[in-house]
Amino acid sequence: MVQVNKPMYNDAVPLEVPLQNDAMTAYGISRCEGGVCAAEGVRASGVCAGLRKEPERRDLALVVADDTCVCAGTFTQNKFCAAPVQVSRARVARGYARAVLLNSGNANASTGGPGVEVAEQSAALVAREIGCADEEVLVGSTGVIGVPLALDGFVRGVPMAVASLVHSPQGAHDAARAVMTTDTVSKESSYELQLTAQDGASVTVHAGGFVKGSGMIMPNMATMLSVLSTDAPLTPDAARTALRAAVRETFNKVTVDSDTSTNDTCILFATGKAAVEEIDLDSPAYPAVAAAIHMVCEDLARKIAADGEGASKLVTVDVLGAANEQDAETVARSIANSPLVKTAIFGHDANWGRVAAAAGKCGVEFDQYHVDIDLLGVPVLRQGLPLPMDEDDMLRRFEENEIKIAISLGEGNACARVWTCDLTHEYITINGDYRT
Amino acid sequence: MVQVNKPMYNDAVPLEVPLQNDAMTAYGISRCEGGVCAAEGVRASGVCAGLRKEPERRDLALVVADDTCVCAGTFTQNKFCAAPVQVSRARVARGYARAVLLNSGNANASTGGPGVEVAEQSAALVAREIGCADEEVLVGSTGVIGVPLALDGFVRGVPMAVASLVHSPQGAHDAARAVMTTDTVSKESSYELQLTAQDGASVTVHAGGFVKGSGMIMPNMATMLSVLSTDAPLTPDAARTALRAAVRETFNKVTVDSDTSTNDTCILFATGKAAVEEIDLDSPAYPAVAAAIHMVCEDLARKIAADGEGASKLVTVDVLGAANEQDAETVARSIANSPLVKTAIFGHDANWGRVAAAAGKCGVEFDQYHVDIDLLGVPVLRQGLPLPMDEDDMLRRFEENEIKIAISLGEGNACARVWTCDLTHEYITINGDYRT
Repeated sequence: MVQVNKPMYNDAVPLEVPLQNDAMTAYGISRCEGGVCAAEGVRASGVCAGLRKEPERRDLALVVADDTCVCAGTFTQNKFCAAPVQVSRARVARGYARAVLLNSGNANASTGGPGVEVAEQSAALVAREIGCADEEVLVGSTGVIGVPLALDGFVRGVPMAVASLVHSPQGAHDAARAVMTTDTVSKESSYELQLTAQDGASVTVHAGGFVKGSGMIMPNMATMLSVLSTDAPLTPDAARTALRAAVRETFNKVTVDSDTSTNDTCILFATGKAAVEEIDLDSPAYPAVAAAIHMVCEDLARKIAADGEGASKLVTVDVLGAANEQDAETVARSIANSPLVKTAIFGHDANWGRVAAAAGKCGVEFDQYHVDIDLLGVPVLRQGLPLPMDEDDMLRRFEENEIKIAISLGEGNACARVWTCDLTHEYITINGDYRT
Repeated sequence: MVQVNKPMYNDAVPLEVPLQNDAMTAYGISRCEGGVCAAEGVRASGVCAGLRKEPERRDLALVVADDTCVCAGTFTQNKFCAAPVQVSRARVARGYARAVLLNSGNANASTGGPGVEVAEQSAALVAREIGCADEEVLVGSTGVIGVPLALDGFVRGVPMAVASLVHSPQGAHDAARAVMTTDTVSKESSYELQLTAQDGASVTVHAGGFVKGSGMIMPNMATMLSVLSTDAPLTPDAARTALRAAVRETFNKVTVDSDTSTNDTCILFATGKAAVEEIDLDSPAYPAVAAAIHMVCEDLARKIAADGEGASKLVTVDVLGAANEQDAETVARSIANSPLVKTAIFGHDANWGRVAAAAGKCGVEFDQYHVDIDLLGVPVLRQGLPLPMDEDDMLRRFEENEIKIAISLGEGNACARVWTCDLTHEYITINGDYRT
């Protein structure tokens, strides 16, 4: 960050925030096109099945692997978990799957036994159309809670979705759009890297995916619904480990409103279509592929925060100098979930006092006279005492799309980063008015 | 609660919420006039000392006991605690005091050594004017964090405040008004009860007080600033115990926005002017006086929630059937702090799915198929499954000023109640725009 008007800010040096992801250069990973269809062997579609009130909106997404392939998944920790989560969690445990069917408009949550039946029957419809066992089809739902979900929409929609399946960026995009609820933009990401085959040839490997999520966003899981894919031939173990590690550091570090959904689901397919040796946890290629999956997730996680319901800003909170990682994360979440911090950002108010108060309230031990705070890259508090601040310059800095908050507790070396957004009138409008 | 349209709601019986406070009848306690001046031996004032930007607003409150008397206090648990908290916490530990000086407009927080000096010097000004030791004067501040507080305002204001001291409802009211920040109403309460003197005579004993608090409200303490008084001759031990018990069950059960202030302070003076025997923890009169203090605090706590920044509704959340009290309270706070629950109430949306999701996200163990939920007195979920709901009737019920949510976890017998408010556009407006 460029230091504008340095002399105004005393001689304090901005906090050094550790770069948490330099995998892009380390492994030669670069962006590519295609989203969830970037990987070979993946087809996707998104259609209008009439599950939503608005008949013109896509509401049914389908992602299908050409053959049964390795899969892994992570799911909501909410004690109220939806029917599709119950069904998919059991099926993912097998380590292999063929397809995932997602709907928006109705979460199929708090719907009891009949809800589970609808989830299973919708999967069976897909299995019949594409020719696989019912257990190889996963499901996910998002939308209103506590309203029975009828099978009719799936009976109509699944054949259309199967007929529309295509291995193309457009197919990926249609699927990403079909799971949107209050999202204002569809969220996709894909990366590629080079691996070396046994015969020495260079092989391009892809990782990509989409996510929906805008409100009720707080780990674990933060995603609501996400489907990822890679053509790297990961073993089930490697897929599970790579997905869990990536989710823990990306989706689970996003908080829009501290509310955790009943439906959060993140599925990774590893089609194995890239012509390289099988990749297990101890394969030399594992770190690079895991890094690519991590980058897809981080990209999507930041997009969730930036598109948080009503959000006008992406907010990155870095906590440094904590006694341990748990403390760092607790303080980071306390700041990121503070309505007063979030409304101050909405109001372009460099009110770092609220950051201090949010850090101090969460039960983590520290000495207020050892604390440093930077806001928008500017040192505003050193050793618990305020530094002079140029309000006009701060106002200019608030024009950036990404607002950075960094705080050092002076207790140790642990750090944590979380992403959030500001809290705006639009959030109130959206959520005061979502169901009715 | 009257069951309107009972047949619409199936045969489910509303949850029985335990009446948490029947002290009014048990001890013959009744409301009275006077606020913090209801107790004999207490004078109060509130003046314009020019500490605020708006010169016409009262900003300095003073409460003085006629003689040095028993006192107790509770303070914020925030690690960033303000200078006046540091000063008062040490002085209250002595168990005796004479006066408390409160200012609004500047929190004197994150102001370091100079802030502590200003707090001490402002107290010394009061001590000089009323003739007592510096250590007998307590201080409290509320307002913006991180801005140096000058002594000038106190030099001007303290003599005016001392000159205005009066034992009257008006004096109490002026003091209550002088500590308001974003509060839209001043918050006072007072109760009286009869005790029997040694000679058999009936003696009226009073308890009363005021509080300010509207945003950044979340235990511990929830009050921001409160001064209470009683003329009951409590010992320091009895005063401390009664205050702590009351605060734990009232102020500390309020949450407006999950943010805890750096300045929360609650002081109780026990002047001993009522002509009854000294009251210790094991005195027969202790429970009645403690109940009166509790009722003052509960009254003030509900007023804080109802006047939460931007609030249009007081929301009472009861959790029943929890495995233990900690679980009950965790679930209650999770619901009360959920932005999605709070915006649904603002939108008059009977979206109990958000209540379920908030209960399920907080890490407390329960089985979703054992959960019952009532919203606005209407059973909406039984054993994890939705009941039919009359939306028109629910809309009518949303017209009430107090919105009741009750949830039973089906795990045990513990329960907890917390108070909060809805989350509105006005909250965003107030807090996007408070400091600047």
